[in-house]
Amino acid sequence: MTEKADRDQIRRQNRSIVLQALRRDGPQARIDLGRATQLSPATVTSITSDLIQEGLIAGVEDGVQKAPQKAPMARGRPRSLLALNPAAASVVAIKISVNTIDLVLADYAGRIAARERLSFDSANISGGDFVETLVGAAKAFCDANSLSDGNLLEISIAAQGVVDSSAGTIVWSPALPARNVPVVEPLSRAIGAHCMLSNDTNMIAEALHWSDPRRYGGTFAVIFIDYGVGMGLYVDNKLFVGETGAAAEIGHTNHIPGGALCRCGRRGCLEAYLGDYAILRMARDLPPSTQPEDIPVSTRTFPDLVDAAAAGKEAVLGAFHEAGVALGYGVARLAAILSPSPIILTGAGIVAYPFMEAGIRKGLEEALVEDLRKTVHIERVDWEEDLIVHGTLAQAMRRFDFEMFSEARACEPSGVREETN
Amino acid sequence: MTEKADRDQIRRQNRSIVLQALRRDGPQARIDLGRATQLSPATVTSITSDLIQEGLIAGVEDGVQKAPQKAPMARGRPRSLLALNPAAASVVAIKISVNTIDLVLADYAGRIAARERLSFDSANISGGDFVETLVGAAKAFCDANSLSDGNLLEISIAAQGVVDSSAGTIVWSPALPARNVPVVEPLSRAIGAHCMLSNDTNMIAEALHWSDPRRYGGTFAVIFIDYGVGMGLYVDNKLFVGETGAAAEIGHTNHIPGGALCRCGRRGCLEAYLGDYAILRMARDLPPSTQPEDIPVSTRTFPDLVDAAAAGKEAVLGAFHEAGVALGYGVARLAAILSPSPIILTGAGIVAYPFMEAGIRKGLEEALVEDLRKTVHIERVDWEEDLIVHGTLAQAMRRFDFEMFSEARACEPSGVREETN
Repeated sequence: MTEKADRDQIRRQNRSIVLQALRRDGPQARIDLGRATQLSPATVTSITSDLIQEGLIAGVEDGVQKAPQKAPMARGRPRSLLALNPAAASVVAIKISVNTIDLVLADYAGRIAARERLSFDSANISGGDFVETLVGAAKAFCDANSLSDGNLLEISIAAQGVVDSSAGTIVWSPALPARNVPVVEPLSRAIGAHCMLSNDTNMIAEALHWSDPRRYGGTFAVIFIDYGVGMGLYVDNKLFVGETGAAAEIGHTNHIPGGALCRCGRRGCLEAYLGDYAILRMARDLPPSTQPEDIPVSTRTFPDLVDAAAAGKEAVLGAFHEAGVALGYGVARLAAILSPSPIILTGAGIVAYPFMEAGIRKGLEEALVEDLRKTVHIERVDWEEDLIVHGTLAQAMRRFDFEMFSEARACEPSGVREETN
Repeated sequence: MTEKADRDQIRRQNRSIVLQALRRDGPQARIDLGRATQLSPATVTSITSDLIQEGLIAGVEDGVQKAPQKAPMARGRPRSLLALNPAAASVVAIKISVNTIDLVLADYAGRIAARERLSFDSANISGGDFVETLVGAAKAFCDANSLSDGNLLEISIAAQGVVDSSAGTIVWSPALPARNVPVVEPLSRAIGAHCMLSNDTNMIAEALHWSDPRRYGGTFAVIFIDYGVGMGLYVDNKLFVGETGAAAEIGHTNHIPGGALCRCGRRGCLEAYLGDYAILRMARDLPPSTQPEDIPVSTRTFPDLVDAAAAGKEAVLGAFHEAGVALGYGVARLAAILSPSPIILTGAGIVAYPFMEAGIRKGLEEALVEDLRKTVHIERVDWEEDLIVHGTLAQAMRRFDFEMFSEARACEPSGVREETN
């Protein structure tokens, strides 16, 4: 690597830190920005003056100082704050899940400006029809929001299942019967914007990191319990996606060799004990070989099962306990390999946590030697669908902050002196 | 983070790249160093002149040019090469394994200058006696090699089992009956040198990365099959050790809930099917609940079992197959979580690979959905005990290259201008 590249990297990083501080915490004075970012006053001044020149941020007056009850007594002039320019750019997040496509538009300050929801028939749609539906919906959404004028910076797509981010294809998803469905290429061709495909559970990890980088930093994991079981993984302060974006599929780590049938076709995956269909299969005492697609699940499955468990229904209590044990084993295997901390449990299935808790503890205890077990810290995060959208937007904005920098660099006078340290 | 820290980081990195290129590939001309490190000529010149001034490297004449058969015809003066100064520093690597302490001294050029092997009784030694033995051996070794004069830069310890690098303790090891045995503090107090404790399998990953950073870079894993089953893990081009150095314990990921008894006290760990005692237990048809310590293993266990398998002994062939299946499941679980590539198999047990191969394939196929399976790339590396020592030395040298830099910086005139990019 060259030093020039390294120094660009530092500039990008510092710019990005400033932009993210403004996006997370809103307008603030230079001095507060310095405190929040731990950059020197000189660096903050230099970076923010670049950003103002590029139109990405602007000075605004402090609203509080101008409020009526203070105005008569205000000493001196109002403090000057820095704020992101919301009009600097737009990002569209698209969330692809079973039967549903969500489209969300956010401005550069990270505020959601428009949203749209579209239904499709996950069970019966062909790959080609899905792509057509997706592209049509995205085009209509962009047109309706006048996004064809070049300030749309990215369409960031989060999809359920296994994705190949480098190829831009959905490899295998519960949302689609087809495999290897290309989405990035058709979308970027139709809209003319940069497109990016991610796994949806990874975006939950991004959302948590975005919301509180200190608490959700370092090496931590999110286990998503829902229609399926997914994982988002941060390693050393960075989202871990592996070579193709397909890594971190904890739902398809084997729990019991030759065990219950999984939706992926294998037997004994963690998901085959913990996904909604798996718990329903156990609660109804269906054979473990029952095909997942023959088990009638819906968004009501978890709440209904929780109601039945709360009413003391033995079979359901037993199913949740079994699911908890499987989850305890899964957490133990993950902890032995990576020891992420915290391990966050979320997803629609989290409402069943009280009925799984004893099972989780049992599984952990059986599966993990004490010296490793004591490092395990499990945390619950109540499920909010918008976590995925927030993470998708946060990731796209961060990418954009970096890209704008390259463009800005391209306009700089050439011949910048290369320092030889 | 401050920019100054970042710029120091770049300097350190570039210095370290230069030093490592010289250590890996031997003396070379500046121009070749530039090619090997991809640093600019100006940067190479600047860094190497610093290093010469600090006495870490020196100019040497090209030996080939001076060789008798060429000397009479030599054109012009011999090329001037740069070489590490072997006397600049020394590192001692200590390897702690069952019944054995190895001590190895290396010079700054990475060449091994002395080695010593000591026996102790792993089964019966107390924690206190072990520490006394270790410290005594280290002191005697340092004295015998005149290492008390301050140029001993680090004692780098690699131990079997679970270690806590931050606390400097061996948490749990097959080499010791005691738990939480402190080694770093007593050693550094007695010798007065910086000490560092690592897990031995991590050091195999370091050795492979050191030998060929392109092939063994990015995210890759080493599974060590021996007296136990360990793992060394690189994630995003860096050794992954987790918060305490205790991560990556794949041997104690559960394979079968409630399964065979493991040395760690849990049931069904991967090691309980793949460690030497586990295979011997299956080969002799002992119950899976047989205590590991009641199974008579030695360094002959793997070769003897391989001989028996080669002679067609059914029970042994069956045991190796079973072990292979367990390994296939283990690789599958690891691949689903991290998809490292390659996954390297090594350790004394690797001699049995031909008898495990079909089992590995069967396990992988049963445990991992095809889309994930196709990314799995397994590689065998023949077992050499010295891999651990080489990795330990390489890691210590790299750390040292960084530390020397801080010391050098401390001597620089203060008030270095902080750039505001």
